[in-house]
Amino acid sequence: MSEHRTELSELGEFGLIEHLTKTITTENGNTVKGIGDDAAVIDAGEDYLLVSTDILMEGVHFNLSYTPLKHLGYKAVVVNLSDIYAMNGRPEQITVSLAMSNRFSVEAMEELYGGMRMAAKKYGVDIVGGDTTSSTSGLAISITAIGRVDKDKVVYRTGAKENELIVVSGDLGGAYMGLQVLEREKAVFEAAPSAQPDLAGNDYILERCLKPEARKDIIELLGELKIMPSSMIDISDGLASEVIHLARAASLGAVIYEDKVPMDTITISRSREFNIEPTTCAMNGGEDYELLFTISQADFERVKGHPDLTVIGHMADAAVGYQLVTRGGQQLSIKAQGWDALLNKDKW
Amino acid sequence: MSEHRTELSELGEFGLIEHLTKTITTENGNTVKGIGDDAAVIDAGEDYLLVSTDILMEGVHFNLSYTPLKHLGYKAVVVNLSDIYAMNGRPEQITVSLAMSNRFSVEAMEELYGGMRMAAKKYGVDIVGGDTTSSTSGLAISITAIGRVDKDKVVYRTGAKENELIVVSGDLGGAYMGLQVLEREKAVFEAAPSAQPDLAGNDYILERCLKPEARKDIIELLGELKIMPSSMIDISDGLASEVIHLARAASLGAVIYEDKVPMDTITISRSREFNIEPTTCAMNGGEDYELLFTISQADFERVKGHPDLTVIGHMADAAVGYQLVTRGGQQLSIKAQGWDALLNKDKW
Repeated sequence: MSEHRTELSELGEFGLIEHLTKTITTENGNTVKGIGDDAAVIDAGEDYLLVSTDILMEGVHFNLSYTPLKHLGYKAVVVNLSDIYAMNGRPEQITVSLAMSNRFSVEAMEELYGGMRMAAKKYGVDIVGGDTTSSTSGLAISITAIGRVDKDKVVYRTGAKENELIVVSGDLGGAYMGLQVLEREKAVFEAAPSAQPDLAGNDYILERCLKPEARKDIIELLGELKIMPSSMIDISDGLASEVIHLARAASLGAVIYEDKVPMDTITISRSREFNIEPTTCAMNGGEDYELLFTISQADFERVKGHPDLTVIGHMADAAVGYQLVTRGGQQLSIKAQGWDALLNKDKW
Repeated sequence: MSEHRTELSELGEFGLIEHLTKTITTENGNTVKGIGDDAAVIDAGEDYLLVSTDILMEGVHFNLSYTPLKHLGYKAVVVNLSDIYAMNGRPEQITVSLAMSNRFSVEAMEELYGGMRMAAKKYGVDIVGGDTTSSTSGLAISITAIGRVDKDKVVYRTGAKENELIVVSGDLGGAYMGLQVLEREKAVFEAAPSAQPDLAGNDYILERCLKPEARKDIIELLGELKIMPSSMIDISDGLASEVIHLARAASLGAVIYEDKVPMDTITISRSREFNIEPTTCAMNGGEDYELLFTISQADFERVKGHPDLTVIGHMADAAVGYQLVTRGGQQLSIKAQGWDALLNKDKW
């Protein structure tokens, strides 16, 4: 082993993944696309198979003091299905690996599994396998989703072209504000355990945080509208990070207009209460699991005015970089955050 | 959530998995086989796709005080490929999810990934995706292996018939004795940190423990010998547990002969040194990653005398139960251990 010690934080999440995987090549003829998209693509004869995997760790991805285990199970499945939809695919199977310490009871595991089964049923996927084991500390959940897509329908991160429109589904920043409310009530509870949590009026953002949905409906809608995105990704790390992913994958720049970024009114008012700039929630909050994609300008009429789709900007020449045009007309450079997003609220 | 608290230990590993998954049904026409075998089976047009997943937790599945990270990465891949071979398949892709705390350096992760890449190269599989994230404590590794098998060649756990022969590849108990040697030297080191570990003469069992191989060669051999096993499983939890799996899956009993169970001389002499009955290592030691399968009596001549294959017993009527016939002619009832195997050395 090398004598030098490089801290993980020096590279950050994206840097580390790139560092570890940059020299990996694929050898099997059946491997169509390896590392570097929302899911791997494998040739399965008539169609392509999509494979995506995730690992969720207690204390990093979830806090059981305010996350019901049933919601956690549901969310753990949904976030993986979201990766399959982001390839324009249909998820069909999942495998589930669980590691848990003996502080969990069988009934707790039933709750967790119950949530996973609920999500599986809702999205029409089968739980086909997995591993259950013990852990010396906490809970770890790793899910692999397997999906399918017609060979001529697969959408990668890489296909955007200059001047194409950038479109996002739903609204952004809600999951992050839901998390802030939960963290606040946890702090209140820790200071005064007899206090009842004050969660009234926050249903929407709490659900965005604790029980997100994957946008199966958007994939179906794009099919109905006969829109084939040129590139697509799901929003797990925040809009900033995902816009950069799509632009960089196409060797392009991107321009986003702050006044176009869709946000729910409750997200906006809660973020003001917390002294967080609403746009920051959308750009760096993450965990919204909306879909971000690019379409040709010719498709504008077909998405215009659709309540679930918003055109927020366009692809540009690489020299433009990644820009956010503020309401005041200022141009701010967009930066990806990854792991550190929630710790650096003042940075884009 | 139910008011009653049932401890995980009341059900044990196998009981818990069965409890959580027993009511799971599959809905997708493409799902051929869900939970309950070494890998899930998915229809992929011309052939079947196999999917297997595993999660390895620091402190439970590996101890970094004597496990080099490169070996750990290698082993983490191999144990998953072993599940694909156990379906008579060929692994082609893997995905890798890692969670690690900041006590690991980038160089440490390079070592781990280096081992995974070495195994991927040796077995001809592509690393096609994964997730890398942080952990509040320790290292978690979850790998999903994807393989393929001709539709008429897939071997399940369920196909054994009465009087068929039970065959095992290689030799058993070595990984467990390797672990005992490592644990002893760790204890010596903790008592006197200046002491040098005494590992001489134990190369074979240390390698069995730290850097096991999956029996790709046995699957190829069975193809050459034109032997199609009626059932097959890989030996991850010890011979006892796996024999019961195959027998139970076929609603049969099984008889194993102690004097036939293949063991290396170094495994036998080390186990005597440690006052462990050698057969116990083979029956309950686990982690040997050999293949256990059943063949018709008509195939006996084809495997007879092959240095890598040993006939150790036969399937029997369910009323016989699961029996070990000792060298002294006694019949002992075989019990599966799962999680608790290594803690209960005196039990079968």
